Amino acid sequence: MLDTGPPRRLESYLDGAWRAGQGEGRPLANAATGAPHARVGAEGLDLAAALAWGRAAGGTALRRHTIHERALMLKAIGLKLMEQKEDFYVESFATGATRADGWIDIEGGIGTMLTYASRARRELPNARIIPEGAVEPLSTDATFSAQHILTPLTGVAVHINAFNFPVWGMLEKIAPALIAGMPCLVKPASQTAYLTELVVRRILEMDILPDGALQLLCGAAGDLLDHVDGQDVVTFTGSAATGRSLRARPAILDNSVRFTMEADSLNAAILGPDAGPDTPEFDLFVKECAREMTAKAGQKCTAIRRILVPAAHEDALVAALSARLAKTPVGLPDDEAVRMGALVSLNDRDGVRARIAEIAAEAEVVGGAPSDVALVSGDAEAGAFLNPVLLRCADPLSAEAPHAVEAFGPVATVMPYADTGEAVALARKGRGSLVSSLFTDDPGVAEDIVLGLAPFHGRVMIGNRDSAKSSTGHGAPLAPLVHGGPGRAGGGEELGGMRGVKHFMQRTAVQGTPRLLTPVTRQWSEGAATRTDDHPFRKSLAELRLGDQLTAGPREITRADVEHFAAFTGDTFYAHMDSAAAAANPFFDDRVAHGYLIVSFAAGMFVQPDPGPVLANYGVDDLRFLAPVYFGDSLTVRLTCKQIDPREGAVYGEVRWDARITNQTDEVVAQYDVLTMVAKEWPLAAE
Amino acid sequence: MLDTGPPRRLESYLDGAWRAGQGEGRPLANAATGAPHARVGAEGLDLAAALAWGRAAGGTALRRHTIHERALMLKAIGLKLMEQKEDFYVESFATGATRADGWIDIEGGIGTMLTYASRARRELPNARIIPEGAVEPLSTDATFSAQHILTPLTGVAVHINAFNFPVWGMLEKIAPALIAGMPCLVKPASQTAYLTELVVRRILEMDILPDGALQLLCGAAGDLLDHVDGQDVVTFTGSAATGRSLRARPAILDNSVRFTMEADSLNAAILGPDAGPDTPEFDLFVKECAREMTAKAGQKCTAIRRILVPAAHEDALVAALSARLAKTPVGLPDDEAVRMGALVSLNDRDGVRARIAEIAAEAEVVGGAPSDVALVSGDAEAGAFLNPVLLRCADPLSAEAPHAVEAFGPVATVMPYADTGEAVALARKGRGSLVSSLFTDDPGVAEDIVLGLAPFHGRVMIGNRDSAKSSTGHGAPLAPLVHGGPGRAGGGEELGGMRGVKHFMQRTAVQGTPRLLTPVTRQWSEGAATRTDDHPFRKSLAELRLGDQLTAGPREITRADVEHFAAFTGDTFYAHMDSAAAAANPFFDDRVAHGYLIVSFAAGMFVQPDPGPVLANYGVDDLRFLAPVYFGDSLTVRLTCKQIDPREGAVYGEVRWDARITNQTDEVVAQYDVLTMVAKEWPLAAE
Repeated sequence: MLDTGPPRRLESYLDGAWRAGQGEGRPLANAATGAPHARVGAEGLDLAAALAWGRAAGGTALRRHTIHERALMLKAIGLKLMEQKEDFYVESFATGATRADGWIDIEGGIGTMLTYASRARRELPNARIIPEGAVEPLSTDATFSAQHILTPLTGVAVHINAFNFPVWGMLEKIAPALIAGMPCLVKPASQTAYLTELVVRRILEMDILPDGALQLLCGAAGDLLDHVDGQDVVTFTGSAATGRSLRARPAILDNSVRFTMEADSLNAAILGPDAGPDTPEFDLFVKECAREMTAKAGQKCTAIRRILVPAAHEDALVAALSARLAKTPVGLPDDEAVRMGALVSLNDRDGVRARIAEIAAEAEVVGGAPSDVALVSGDAEAGAFLNPVLLRCADPLSAEAPHAVEAFGPVATVMPYADTGEAVALARKGRGSLVSSLFTDDPGVAEDIVLGLAPFHGRVMIGNRDSAKSSTGHGAPLAPLVHGGPGRAGGGEELGGMRGVKHFMQRTAVQGTPRLLTPVTRQWSEGAATRTDDHPFRKSLAELRLGDQLTAGPREITRADVEHFAAFTGDTFYAHMDSAAAAANPFFDDRVAHGYLIVSFAAGMFVQPDPGPVLANYGVDDLRFLAPVYFGDSLTVRLTCKQIDPREGAVYGEVRWDARITNQTDEVVAQYDVLTMVAKEWPLAAE
Repeated sequence: MLDTGPPRRLESYLDGAWRAGQGEGRPLANAATGAPHARVGAEGLDLAAALAWGRAAGGTALRRHTIHERALMLKAIGLKLMEQKEDFYVESFATGATRADGWIDIEGGIGTMLTYASRARRELPNARIIPEGAVEPLSTDATFSAQHILTPLTGVAVHINAFNFPVWGMLEKIAPALIAGMPCLVKPASQTAYLTELVVRRILEMDILPDGALQLLCGAAGDLLDHVDGQDVVTFTGSAATGRSLRARPAILDNSVRFTMEADSLNAAILGPDAGPDTPEFDLFVKECAREMTAKAGQKCTAIRRILVPAAHEDALVAALSARLAKTPVGLPDDEAVRMGALVSLNDRDGVRARIAEIAAEAEVVGGAPSDVALVSGDAEAGAFLNPVLLRCADPLSAEAPHAVEAFGPVATVMPYADTGEAVALARKGRGSLVSSLFTDDPGVAEDIVLGLAPFHGRVMIGNRDSAKSSTGHGAPLAPLVHGGPGRAGGGEELGGMRGVKHFMQRTAVQGTPRLLTPVTRQWSEGAATRTDDHPFRKSLAELRLGDQLTAGPREITRADVEHFAAFTGDTFYAHMDSAAAAANPFFDDRVAHGYLIVSFAAGMFVQPDPGPVLANYGVDDLRFLAPVYFGDSLTVRLTCKQIDPREGAVYGEVRWDARITNQTDEVVAQYDVLTMVAKEWPLAAE
């Protein structure tokens, strides 16, 4: 196995400089060879100063940018990291990870960051705050309203990460935090900090992030958590015991510091009662269990630990899975013949063996031998190798250890169940897990079991023949989906698309008269100031202001209009055509105009026909027909500029218009948002 | 003052019965007269059994109902409580509360419950789970997707409440929890538990809630929090010190129990630099400060504690506010001449006086005298009376006590500031508050100060002349707005409309092939099963199924159609009319059809003209025009039943249809949801 030179002394990037800390540091060994690989330690480093610098320099600088600007920084970083990925794969071998394991960590991590960079620009405004939800009118005369907004917290996001994914673990957390506008201080687990340190060095060399936006602590956390306050956020990934002790730290309790914990859990995979040995689901289940037990040598917080199978199929499952596991080539991670590498350290291997012994008090080993190591390459004594171990628990409803003891390695326990209710009860005995999966092709089984699992899980995956090729698998947290689980899994929630960004922001209800709310929320709402000087469609983004308004009409809707529209479009619904039938409908007194006719006439009233800055109407949101329009009614439309979102790197931006159609008695008959693309300047600048 | 009879022994309703606990209980005095009013104690009650009963009986029964059914239970309870409100007002006087104070608690509490009952039916589906957010396609071939769902937690919501709002404090928490489907165990503060107990008795007598859905603990919490697990939720309202100790309880830390804390905070009110003594905002500010200091005798977690004023207006403010406070008649709460009643107990009055002394170490008393009591009625020794006290801190940037010591009574400290930046810095010295208010008529001041306050506050109110009459005020938490704040305020979040319901549910990402997701999420999505047997508009809710689908067309869009539509509607936008001008637009290559024409033709294709179960199209959501439609393009529309929501107590329900329009090359040109009202049976049953 290639070794990457003499052990290097890892450094921390804190308070504006790379700092080694006092002394030589603790030695870290290559997981697969035992060779010295690095030295780590952070003695004497001033962590209070680092937090202060992050808040002052990093936070202030990040908050000057818009969400889209910050997302574009992450896109640039992600693309450059991807170019350098081979360097990270080399360093990753030292952690015991195979190339396939490294892919999850390295490309999975960079991909998560790029997904955030892209979705934030699609789903969030290009602004410094995020309005959330609808405006709440709090008075009948539109003089007092409220709007929730999200603003970045002014502290530092402290991320305390696990050893198993030194790249993904960092990037999946800093991406949403940085987009939110919070600077980060990353503390990787010491065992594999060398890979995180390499990636942080590369990110800082790019000089894309503002100073103070990203800090790194390689070594023990020391007094770091004694200095956090109510504007900081702490996230923790790792063992439930460590998480519990961190959560109880005085500064965290005293200051109500947001603490997000994602702990290893005893995730269950369930074979549906319909999925006997002759079904595609049975084969998929065997493959998935083997994959989850051996990927990253089972050192994944989402790995399958409990395998729940219908009692009738238990023997078949044990036979098929044991056979598959026995054929898994274990050895040096950079050996292409190898499918499973090493655990992270000899010490961790001892721990896994001890946990297996605890589980074995209530179960029997039916595949593999915890104490014997069989390798295709490498040294069984020098490297932290372990072959997969399968246990079987005969009475899982009364057993405790298989539901509570986590062997963080290639280890799982098979348990039989009698019916779907028992399968759910067994899964719940894990007392809260990150993920559970169910393999079935039966919609009724899916409904029963998934709804039974849901309150105890952050994610539930259904596997079947249709998704055999497209499924991302039991173990993979995905950027758009929440990652976390209740109870034993820590009670936290990460990722989940833009939900993850909001974890680093404060939600505030802002109340006041609309005229004073608009400058805060950057949204026009009913009652706020308006301007009616020129047709707003003649204004580019350089001229357009929130509240720019046009009122057009009235236009009468006649019986002839409705009949003409019906004949032209083919929409001869009886409520438009037949007076008696319309009156029998609970919503109408007589024949009514088509909703689509009403909005079409409105567009005819408010449109500005000549070429101008409004380039296209790309959609309509929240259209509601609030009152029937009868023949002879006269309609007036009022269009008001509600939200302006200039797009980074384009010559135009999105403008949302509040459209309100009223009749001759000022009753609102329709209300909706019109979405347009509007040029930043007019005539259009060259793209 | 009317006394309400001999002291009654309060009981707890636990594990299916009213139980008094061992012994006589601790005496509780009438706050205003000192007369014995009740006895409270819960010694020997089995709290573990109560939690177990709540989970087993209450949770199971509640989860059998839909969200709308549960909301209707709360509506019925709220309406009946409102009929009995006078009984509650009588009991409320014993807490020291005036009729106006009681209104906040009693009618404010019942109103909050009714708001939840109404909004849940408007904003949430009539179902047992809530789908959240859009379906996430995870494969390009629609074989693997995901959807987030919310399901009720299976434990008990334990609400530990403060003494100041014995009715509102209970109802604002049980309303969202019960709607979510979680049973509640309410533990009111002992001091005023008699009023909570009375309301719970009345609710249980109504026999509307299922057994186990609501329990009450009058007395000390004992070992209650030693028995909570990861499916329970604990909410706490009260002092920061008590909250901190509860949050650190082993069972809460060990099981990652959701713990929502809402602690008293040092809320600031800010007079804008523009709001000098000659402005309406100055007068409004004086009134609001006086009102917040004296309502409920200042015993409100949202009360104004810090009054930040421009240095130039400090003297004027102190003079005006002191004068107003000095005129506040203090005395027996049921005396109609009285504007401020008593503190909750003599002991609490001692506490407030001690806190004033602490603050006075860095400030001077400029209004009122902490040790002298002047009353219009009542006995200054027997009742817990205190006149309002105003302090003034000359150097608030360096002072600590006025920002950290909370005198939970009619007490506030005036502090001068130099500019808006300093006003924000001072407000932030409270280290996180529930609410702050700003009185200004200047949009620039609103923008600067509110955005500076936001990260440190759960709510910010702007007061000005326009909202003088309609404003709900600094101190009022409202059902649709979040209530809670970061840091010292506890870091919790309550209310916030339907956000509050979700606090009692687990969010789960469910992944799988759409055919198996639909029975779980009750939503059709692309790739799920479809049925094309009959026109879906001919099916009542009794017959209609998710996935019922109609494909109609093709219909060609001609130049004549577009020109005709332009002339008819008046929408002669150049991109429809002028080939060269259209081609100069960055989104088009040539003249295009109107978006409204496309959706109108689609309706013409999918409509079923005869009277039938589809009664009306009441709206359209998320319409996006995804590709231009040129002359000669042929359009096909596909309509699929996506979500079915039968309405309780009506003969119809809401049905959401996925509408997709494609052109002759199967490119999607438009995508939207059509919203319809559909009869439960056809012909329509009598209403």
